[in-house]
Amino acid sequence: MTRGWSRQAEGSALIEFGNTRVLCTASFTQGVPRWLKGEGTGWVTAEYAMLPRATNTRSQRESVKGKIGGRTHEISRLIGRSLRAIIDLKALGENTIVLDCDVLEADGGTRTASVTGAYVALAEAIAWAKGQGVIPASAQPLKDSVAAVSVGIIDGVPMLDLPYVEDVRAETDMNVVVTGSGDFVEVQGTAEGAPFNRSELDSLLDLAVAGSAELAIIQRETLAGER
Amino acid sequence: MTRGWSRQAEGSALIEFGNTRVLCTASFTQGVPRWLKGEGTGWVTAEYAMLPRATNTRSQRESVKGKIGGRTHEISRLIGRSLRAIIDLKALGENTIVLDCDVLEADGGTRTASVTGAYVALAEAIAWAKGQGVIPASAQPLKDSVAAVSVGIIDGVPMLDLPYVEDVRAETDMNVVVTGSGDFVEVQGTAEGAPFNRSELDSLLDLAVAGSAELAIIQRETLAGER
Amino acid sequence: MTRGWSRQAEGSALIEFGNTRVLCTASFTQGVPRWLKGEGTGWVTAEYAMLPRATNTRSQRESVKGKIGGRTHEISRLIGRSLRAIIDLKALGENTIVLDCDVLEADGGTRTASVTGAYVALAEAIAWAKGQGVIPASAQPLKDSVAAVSVGIIDGVPMLDLPYVEDVRAETDMNVVVTGSGDFVEVQGTAEGAPFNRSELDSLLDLAVAGSAELAIIQRETLAGER
Amino acid sequence: MTRGWSRQAEGSALIEFGNTRVLCTASFTQGVPRWLKGEGTGWVTAEYAMLPRATNTRSQRESVKGKIGGRTHEISRLIGRSLRAIIDLKALGENTIVLDCDVLEADGGTRTASVTGAYVALAEAIAWAKGQGVIPASAQPLKDSVAAVSVGIIDGVPMLDLPYVEDVRAETDMNVVVTGSGDFVEVQGTAEGAPFNRSELDSLLDLAVAGSAELAIIQRETLAGER
Amino acid sequence: MTRGWSRQAEGSALIEFGNTRVLCTASFTQGVPRWLKGEGTGWVTAEYAMLPRATNTRSQRESVKGKIGGRTHEISRLIGRSLRAIIDLKALGENTIVLDCDVLEADGGTRTASVTGAYVALAEAIAWAKGQGVIPASAQPLKDSVAAVSVGIIDGVPMLDLPYVEDVRAETDMNVVVTGSGDFVEVQGTAEGAPFNRSELDSLLDLAVAGSAELAIIQRETLAGER
Amino acid sequence: MTRGWSRQAEGSALIEFGNTRVLCTASFTQGVPRWLKGEGTGWVTAEYAMLPRATNTRSQRESVKGKIGGRTHEISRLIGRSLRAIIDLKALGENTIVLDCDVLEADGGTRTASVTGAYVALAEAIAWAKGQGVIPASAQPLKDSVAAVSVGIIDGVPMLDLPYVEDVRAETDMNVVVTGSGDFVEVQGTAEGAPFNRSELDSLLDLAVAGSAELAIIQRETLAGER
Repeated sequence: MTRGWSRQAEGSALIEFGNTRVLCTASFTQGVPRWLKGEGTGWVTAEYAMLPRATNTRSQRESVKGKIGGRTHEISRLIGRSLRAIIDLKALGENTIVLDCDVLEADGGTRTASVTGAYVALAEAIAWAKGQGVIPASAQPLKDSVAAVSVGIIDGVPMLDLPYVEDVRAETDMNVVVTGSGDFVEVQGTAEGAPFNRSELDSLLDLAVAGSAELAIIQRETLAGER
Repeated sequence: MTRGWSRQAEGSALIEFGNTRVLCTASFTQGVPRWLKGEGTGWVTAEYAMLPRATNTRSQRESVKGKIGGRTHEISRLIGRSLRAIIDLKALGENTIVLDCDVLEADGGTRTASVTGAYVALAEAIAWAKGQGVIPASAQPLKDSVAAVSVGIIDGVPMLDLPYVEDVRAETDMNVVVTGSGDFVEVQGTAEGAPFNRSELDSLLDLAVAGSAELAIIQRETLAGER
Repeated sequence: MTRGWSRQAEGSALIEFGNTRVLCTASFTQGVPRWLKGEGTGWVTAEYAMLPRATNTRSQRESVKGKIGGRTHEISRLIGRSLRAIIDLKALGENTIVLDCDVLEADGGTRTASVTGAYVALAEAIAWAKGQGVIPASAQPLKDSVAAVSVGIIDGVPMLDLPYVEDVRAETDMNVVVTGSGDFVEVQGTAEGAPFNRSELDSLLDLAVAGSAELAIIQRETLAGER
Repeated sequence: MTRGWSRQAEGSALIEFGNTRVLCTASFTQGVPRWLKGEGTGWVTAEYAMLPRATNTRSQRESVKGKIGGRTHEISRLIGRSLRAIIDLKALGENTIVLDCDVLEADGGTRTASVTGAYVALAEAIAWAKGQGVIPASAQPLKDSVAAVSVGIIDGVPMLDLPYVEDVRAETDMNVVVTGSGDFVEVQGTAEGAPFNRSELDSLLDLAVAGSAELAIIQRETLAGER
Repeated sequence: MTRGWSRQAEGSALIEFGNTRVLCTASFTQGVPRWLKGEGTGWVTAEYAMLPRATNTRSQRESVKGKIGGRTHEISRLIGRSLRAIIDLKALGENTIVLDCDVLEADGGTRTASVTGAYVALAEAIAWAKGQGVIPASAQPLKDSVAAVSVGIIDGVPMLDLPYVEDVRAETDMNVVVTGSGDFVEVQGTAEGAPFNRSELDSLLDLAVAGSAELAIIQRETLAGER
Repeated sequence: MTRGWSRQAEGSALIEFGNTRVLCTASFTQGVPRWLKGEGTGWVTAEYAMLPRATNTRSQRESVKGKIGGRTHEISRLIGRSLRAIIDLKALGENTIVLDCDVLEADGGTRTASVTGAYVALAEAIAWAKGQGVIPASAQPLKDSVAAVSVGIIDGVPMLDLPYVEDVRAETDMNVVVTGSGDFVEVQGTAEGAPFNRSELDSLLDLAVAGSAELAIIQRETLAGER
């Protein structure tokens, strides 16, 4: 994880997991969308996209197609919800932070890498806002950290999704978003092949909690490093 | 649940949960999308939509906006995945079934009502296809039944989402898709307010399994009734 | 005709003609579109759509195509014009009523069924507004009732379009919108095959007036019944 | 009416009515749309549009808006239907003629001018096709001529819509499409203000038939002139 | 060049070059786009389009496709930039002029004809605004005139692009926009086949300057003539 | 310039000019677009885009807007034309190469950086194709190299556009695309403020040729380095 990769954004992180590379930027702007005006609360939202040749074969740009696919929408919403779960929007004041997660190279796990990297960019942007005096130094908009992992059942064995393991092969694929203190923000498990039973679900959740704890440490170290 | 509500479709069900009403139709066509041709396998997909005045205040039609929102995409994909989990696509032959779930009135729980009703429409369409001889009478495309429930934590208490309970009030909202034999197809839990811990998650899953079992019985009875 | 079918809308009617079923809802909102502000007059408009599997074979959703077809536009405009012809927009005050006519099942005559059902939903919504005190009880926004019929020449014989008669077979197809007092609001006749002469046109108009008078009675009875 | 105004198209006419000017071109191509292939029949269709500054104030281009409005669709369909009513599609062979009616200046009556001018362009294109040997010289695809007029009730008086009479003032506006032999192809009457009665309707139809007969003469003369 | 061809617009010119015909209209409106409000400066912009049958074979309308192609965008921007180069936007006051260049017939050179004709329409609109008193009679928004030519290398010979010379055959194609006083506004040269060297470039520029000077004379004469 | 930055694409380069960073990838696929099939010739095309936060303030994604802006189209076409000028499409065989130039950070000069970097990615992809035997080792699809520079007149002084010089301040802005052997592929000069005269144009061209020669050397060195 490289923080401050982009020199234009208020916060940014380049996150690399095996052959997956996601550039996360946080754009801080004063003011909120119209439907929130005057509520004394801020807003955090996210957009996810892939470069056309992030993948092994080129896919058409969504801007060329003229519409955004269901998968893109789904992941954008997941990232936004995950970050809002650990943000105190009131403490943010009437400010908006937009997280952009652009996948430069994709080799599995792009949605979990996006959540994990977006948190670092978000933390940077909040530090920036405090430095600029846009948010009072005493404000605590971040209630916790957040990271995401992908776990799955491959050939009957629950395992933490290593980047080179193709999601495609997984019988069950589960994305779990966990706070730094170990609580769940999102649990999204899907049986790609056979439905899964309760004990498989339990093993997957155990793995996810352990994996997220490791990511939380890396996030903390990255943010402690220099920009 | 009323089966055969539509006289035009190969399968259909009108499902009513409190003030929620969803019309599910199954359209059976011979042939498969181009990318599946010659694979000897069928295809099942779904589309979800809401009438503009299904809700308490009118919302703009997605056809008028010219694009489909993220929420609509997400639910359409969930329904499609849920049904594919209990279908043996090979046994379906090179045929396609499209499920349309149109919400006529919405009062919470529309996505879970859609999955549950769509299963009945799907089963009807398969029975129709066998009756027409399009699928051999001996084929068993349905491996199991499937139903969905919504569970949530309201004021700290995990509860089965009764239709009149506003999703909005829930601190955690979880949609669980379960097969007739009690295995999981989808687990989608989201912390709307505070993150949830493992024991809360376990209670929610217990409730979901119990609720789905009841729905499976209603589905079986509906399909046993006359069209 | 069932009034009050939807529990969410200010007015609604489910109209069934043979195998055709159209759900008409009326959404009453205070205020008018920007271009009418401050004119002291209300607005009434309509939108028509078909569920994808309303017809014998499934058609693609207009929201998926990303645009609304010419036929849909045409019928939406016809319904709106027909209702505005019998409404005193000044007496409505600065309020807007949107009629949504969604075809649940289609077997011919959906546009005339929509006009006829929309009138009932409109009348309900106006009664609701008076009941709520949004419109003064003494106001008379409804100047008349309105209904529509389809007439055609089949095998040389002018006839009132019975639902099971396929429009497709008609040599001439005419939609006529008539007020409760027997005047014309719209006359739309199209020669599908051979052009028609004046005497054929006269017979069609006679039939239309007679048919509309019967519909006006059913509308009155429906509105006299309980919600 | 100037025939052959465009040197690129197989048929064309510039029609001028007062301050209204419409350029009609006919594009003849061999082959038919996919859904007609192998039926041994041709196809005729039309598209209508207005230049942005055809009117008194500029309106936004539909290409810039990204969608075609309801009015444009409606008129395009009217022109297409009117021409197909006088064409023997079988005699046309498997060929397609697309009529484009582009309004260069608009001062009322653009839809009726379009139908009337499009007929001349169509006749030219058919003559061209016979000249080229694409259609046998003995074929008779044109069964009749066709023209359209607009009639209306202004201040209670039925009158033939002169171009400078604003449609806006009309209480009733009726577009009538009539063949050269005096039969009706389309009758589209709309009460803009008060509904109209049967005797008003009869007067309007009489006027329309007389006006169309004059247009038919002008069309014949134009086509008899040199290209 | 015919000035005042359109009776609706504040300025207009029909420009004909061989078989190319472009209708240029200038729409003058008071006020400026939102991003310019209160700056005390005006705005000039342009839109270019082709009728579907302007060319030898019909092309689909951009309004039907639902999007504007790259070529259309490019030419619209070129026209706008060219005119802004000779306009003193401050002297225009807070007014907007939109130039519409619609190609009625295309036989090469449509973009240069558009720039050249748009200047005449612009000059007419400014004269109109002075006549109306919308701009003070003493204001001088036009700093110079502007015209465009296309030059190219055909079979190794640099030549002024005569309309009947197909752009397609050119090895190098260059559009040059030149002011009435002989300075360059735009130089856009593209090697279609082999790259070109400095001496070829010099010859092309010489030709362009000479050709533009002739057009400047025709523009002056057209504007001196009666409307 | 870093070659081979992306591990997924057949060719790629990350080009950095001051604070500008563009990721160029080349996607090699067998086969050509339909309109070229059977011509025995290949195709090279390009797409340009900017990440939303590449710039100092965030701009909306074109995929979210649902359409591609004129500037994006223009630059994509420029890149494509520039590369096709130095490619022998016949020697490429029936293969397609798509260049994607995605701006990760923008600080001026993104279009010229894109052309320059895209050439490196293209050369890598061709080397890859020869290595794979898709193109015969003896084929010479690359006739030359190509690079682009931006030159401008700042405060009356023609200068090579250094990245930190804002294009905005330039009175004249010229993009010049030059081959490795010093010939011109594109010359695009625009007077942003005052028109420019012939001697200014000459100075700009001299600067451009000199600057491109330096880039050609860097390109050669980058391609000589290891992937």
